[in-house]
Amino acid sequence: MSLAPTTPPADQKTDEPILLRADADGVCTLTLNRPQARNALSVALMAALQEMLDAIAKDDSVKVVVIAANGPAFCAGHDLKEVRGLPAEQHRPLFDQCSRLMTTVVHLPKPVIAKVHAMATAAGCQLVASCDLAYAADGAKFATPGVNIGLFCSTPMVALSRAVGRKKAMEMLLSGRPITAAEAEAAGLINHAVPAADLDAAVADMAGVIASKSPLTLAIGKEAFYRQVEMSLEDAYTYASKVMARNMAARDASEGIDAFLEKRQPTWQGR
Amino acid sequence: MSLAPTTPPADQKTDEPILLRADADGVCTLTLNRPQARNALSVALMAALQEMLDAIAKDDSVKVVVIAANGPAFCAGHDLKEVRGLPAEQHRPLFDQCSRLMTTVVHLPKPVIAKVHAMATAAGCQLVASCDLAYAADGAKFATPGVNIGLFCSTPMVALSRAVGRKKAMEMLLSGRPITAAEAEAAGLINHAVPAADLDAAVADMAGVIASKSPLTLAIGKEAFYRQVEMSLEDAYTYASKVMARNMAARDASEGIDAFLEKRQPTWQGR
Amino acid sequence: MSLAPTTPPADQKTDEPILLRADADGVCTLTLNRPQARNALSVALMAALQEMLDAIAKDDSVKVVVIAANGPAFCAGHDLKEVRGLPAEQHRPLFDQCSRLMTTVVHLPKPVIAKVHAMATAAGCQLVASCDLAYAADGAKFATPGVNIGLFCSTPMVALSRAVGRKKAMEMLLSGRPITAAEAEAAGLINHAVPAADLDAAVADMAGVIASKSPLTLAIGKEAFYRQVEMSLEDAYTYASKVMARNMAARDASEGIDAFLEKRQPTWQGR
Repeated sequence: MSLAPTTPPADQKTDEPILLRADADGVCTLTLNRPQARNALSVALMAALQEMLDAIAKDDSVKVVVIAANGPAFCAGHDLKEVRGLPAEQHRPLFDQCSRLMTTVVHLPKPVIAKVHAMATAAGCQLVASCDLAYAADGAKFATPGVNIGLFCSTPMVALSRAVGRKKAMEMLLSGRPITAAEAEAAGLINHAVPAADLDAAVADMAGVIASKSPLTLAIGKEAFYRQVEMSLEDAYTYASKVMARNMAARDASEGIDAFLEKRQPTWQGR
Repeated sequence: MSLAPTTPPADQKTDEPILLRADADGVCTLTLNRPQARNALSVALMAALQEMLDAIAKDDSVKVVVIAANGPAFCAGHDLKEVRGLPAEQHRPLFDQCSRLMTTVVHLPKPVIAKVHAMATAAGCQLVASCDLAYAADGAKFATPGVNIGLFCSTPMVALSRAVGRKKAMEMLLSGRPITAAEAEAAGLINHAVPAADLDAAVADMAGVIASKSPLTLAIGKEAFYRQVEMSLEDAYTYASKVMARNMAARDASEGIDAFLEKRQPTWQGR
Repeated sequence: MSLAPTTPPADQKTDEPILLRADADGVCTLTLNRPQARNALSVALMAALQEMLDAIAKDDSVKVVVIAANGPAFCAGHDLKEVRGLPAEQHRPLFDQCSRLMTTVVHLPKPVIAKVHAMATAAGCQLVASCDLAYAADGAKFATPGVNIGLFCSTPMVALSRAVGRKKAMEMLLSGRPITAAEAEAAGLINHAVPAADLDAAVADMAGVIASKSPLTLAIGKEAFYRQVEMSLEDAYTYASKVMARNMAARDASEGIDAFLEKRQPTWQGR
């Protein structure tokens, strides 16, 4: 968590947006840009992310989303100074706003990759856990330190405990201590820890691979993944069989199978 | 996935069955035998496996099942040429047949071990994930590459996402890229990766250990495992306590405890 | 499991209690003290643990609980000689008593750490799996060997399968074979395996860190963890947002955030 001033500190260019967007080859990179506030998720930054993701959901030009960050931290979680200044009746709406943002990442019909160059704490760690995939520089760290300030990371643990085992999640939550990128990889919180110099390339590589697939197929699959994982085995199979049959009826599946059988590259139409 | 001709290729002996069975010392080994088709799960091969497993379920001579395969791949998933040739109204029944086969492995009242000597993809990877245990040669690979042909591995992911963490499952599903046997072991998709020369021995060792146990106890325990794992903690304990008490009433439990207290080998009667 | 005589063996001091308690600096250490019986969970020992935990639940002086053990084993599970001597109608109550004890650990409003210096088997392995955190000497082993005596570890697997992946749990349950502390760490059954000489310090360090937090915050967080982990993602977020808002209303959260913003140590009041 972070001391995040409501007025920009002297060293921040006040005219810079708090969230940057860059699109290239179907990859949309969103960059958290409150470096002096360690990219704390102020109400304004959460709203900017929400608005951007809602727009991306309907934007056919975007195949895959990367969430990155500027400055010395990836994301420090909630903006504590702002939180402290809120009247009590606005706390619940604040946490609801954050929870809605995190579930939007999960339900977005495009894969989302976290690109974690540095420390991710509390709701910042939750953001990493909520993304479909995550790559980190080997010097990055991950923590849910709410317990240090008397405020247990209860919403972050929703995402954390669905990404890693219970003992590891409890260790992070009860102690507040950070884990290294290597530990995060072993625990399943991130896909891979790489040398900092290789992080751009690792994320670009995976984003490029995903962007080369049929966006319709990705959307069908991602939605089905998070739905079936909460079902009983029987229900999951009934549901997934239906999804497979629906997917088979799509033009992109016929084209994909034909291309495979004819040993050529498929051309996707997203339908 | 695999180009799987509906007529046997010239180099396949046409009189060989597509599924082999060998029994020894309570261990029943089923071998997928469509090597030129990379053991693709054609409708005929799925039906043969289903029939065999249904028979084994009632066969007291079988204590444990091993699923192995002949040829350059373990199993390439669905038979794409066959799938492509089906009218649309037969897709759903096809995926239902496959899902029924996979749940039959899970519900079989005998432990099932996958012996993976080479590549397992799509429904082949699902078959590995569905077995109770899995051992692989260290050169084997695992992939859910449906996304490459526009057909997301939605039914394979039901089994995959119950064996490995979400980030790893999503990496495989969204990228279509294979993982190594070592990665599969670290992720929990298989129990152990061993040198190819040791695979027979590793599987025979584990199969032998399991075959030495009370088949009644194994059946009680396996069924209870998959039922309780989908319950809340409270419900799981209520259910499992009942199962323990029922198990205690069996002759094999009395015999097992007596043998233990008397420091002798038990003799199981399977009741 | 263990041959656990109902009368104390000659080499056990008959006047020693079967469960020891020591309190220091908010850390309450409970030590299983049936060394000659490998700390088998007799009805009397389970009752003593239950009574102690029920008292600790209401004891404001206790911030964190450590469960340790004396002798050559950590805990050998049920007391088989005692179990064998029970009439059939008392088996279900016995397993219910054990299940209640394990869920009491989970629901205790203080973190519980297992300190595993040696072998933990059956219900002893379940006890480790049920604790919030677990540290082990690198020579410790873990097993669910009920299958060896015809009595599948059905209640232990409730805790085991919620701590480790399915393939690893099934390997332990179907084979009865022990795994090493290093394997247990990789699988998520314990947090860390350390050299035996470092076990006291590792547990004291983590217990001390946790004891320095607000007990109210720990209680809120621990309860929320095990409740939300069984919910769907949507329900979990709705629930956790409510928990966060409730936590924010506590004096310890205001104090913790103020202390953080003022760069000083917080003083907890547990409310």
